[in-house]
Amino acid sequence: MRKIHVIGIGAGDPEQLTLQAVRALRSTDVFFILDKGEVKADLTRLRRDILDTHLPQGTYRVVEARDPERDRAADGAAYSPAVGDWRSARADIYERLIAEELGEEETGAFLVWGDPSLYDSTLGILEEVLERDAVAFEYDVVPGISSVSALVARHRTGLNRIARPVQITTGRRLAEGFPEGVDDVVVMLDAQQTFRQYAQEDVDIYWGAYIGTPDEILVSGPIAEAAPRIERLRAGARERKGWIMDTYLLRRHPRD
Amino acid sequence: MRKIHVIGIGAGDPEQLTLQAVRALRSTDVFFILDKGEVKADLTRLRRDILDTHLPQGTYRVVEARDPERDRAADGAAYSPAVGDWRSARADIYERLIAEELGEEETGAFLVWGDPSLYDSTLGILEEVLERDAVAFEYDVVPGISSVSALVARHRTGLNRIARPVQITTGRRLAEGFPEGVDDVVVMLDAQQTFRQYAQEDVDIYWGAYIGTPDEILVSGPIAEAAPRIERLRAGARERKGWIMDTYLLRRHPRD
Repeated sequence: MRKIHVIGIGAGDPEQLTLQAVRALRSTDVFFILDKGEVKADLTRLRRDILDTHLPQGTYRVVEARDPERDRAADGAAYSPAVGDWRSARADIYERLIAEELGEEETGAFLVWGDPSLYDSTLGILEEVLERDAVAFEYDVVPGISSVSALVARHRTGLNRIARPVQITTGRRLAEGFPEGVDDVVVMLDAQQTFRQYAQEDVDIYWGAYIGTPDEILVSGPIAEAAPRIERLRAGARERKGWIMDTYLLRRHPRD
Repeated sequence: MRKIHVIGIGAGDPEQLTLQAVRALRSTDVFFILDKGEVKADLTRLRRDILDTHLPQGTYRVVEARDPERDRAADGAAYSPAVGDWRSARADIYERLIAEELGEEETGAFLVWGDPSLYDSTLGILEEVLERDAVAFEYDVVPGISSVSALVARHRTGLNRIARPVQITTGRRLAEGFPEGVDDVVVMLDAQQTFRQYAQEDVDIYWGAYIGTPDEILVSGPIAEAAPRIERLRAGARERKGWIMDTYLLRRHPRD
């Protein structure tokens, strides 16, 4: 039976790999690396560096594939169907990779930034491939340090306040309003800097980009003061590197 | 200047330590281990095993202290003040440990189960000690694999569904009602098995205890079927071991 590891490799710092992840890397014959295009070439290189650091050369193969382009133009009202098409296109690619590039007794791996459980599609796609029943395999998941944990560790703060909840959500959701019933909200996948919408409120922000890498930028403080600074730093970094990965925690002062 | 590492050591599997955590362990002179009493002796031993595995004997010291008893009888309406007293009592202990047991040029460490950012008081207590200004130190945080990440990895599912939010909350909060605006809720610190309150609803549960250890128990499925099974397994395990650490994800079927 073919085996697949889905390995969380941390948020960017190669030292954030767990011992369990290193062990999984070492038991892997074939690594599947999906490239999201030129702007993410840095990330592909970072993954290759991880392999070079932990594995003797010649003991593994790397198969690169091109991620299907997601129809970002359709990202408005038609968000869900576009995502559906994209997942299906990815499932085609994953199925082919596993069937054609992995021997029946071999182990393959997908390396996932952060933790495979948070805003990552790999597990859903593998389930879709299994449902199609064209290729059989077993898989397991190696948890990783999420960008959320890495963010708050660098800011030396907690995700939740004592005995209170925390919500993890997307920029798109935050644009619809501050979530009900929580005052601590982590926002991921926000290309629109939706935090600006709350710049007049009694909110602190803990923001970070490229967390755990030499390019790391951290900003925290009352949002009215921090927001313009984040905008400026973000625009500069994005122009310099060609891409940005950032996330933030909004902490609202309780109104009681 | 004294230095302190707050090190997330994962949810129970010693292989969930990150390389960064191992490096931090190796740069530590004194480990502070706070024992919560006899029932948690297993956990103290597990921490000692981690040190034995990664550090040469004789290169470090361990200082054990007794955690102040929390006034659980006051856990009803008076929850917050009781927590406040307890934090203050802990701050006294931490301050004394750092001032008396750590040399001025030495590095100390607190080992935290899971991730220091989630329902852990260490960071808040260290800030309180710094504010008192009786002993000076620098500290950093090494993120760890949270029991939340470990739980869903073992269940091979995500925390969130596509483009949707997830909330992490406590049993006490869940008892007040299913959180607004989310269908995926992770519950921690729930000694009351509050999930039973939702046993008649269209909810799936992903539950786990002692995750990542040889005693691990996992149950998942529609809550009506899973809840009685979890109750039985939980009671048996608790009696056998004298303590339990469990957590779960509730996934409500969207009502649209």
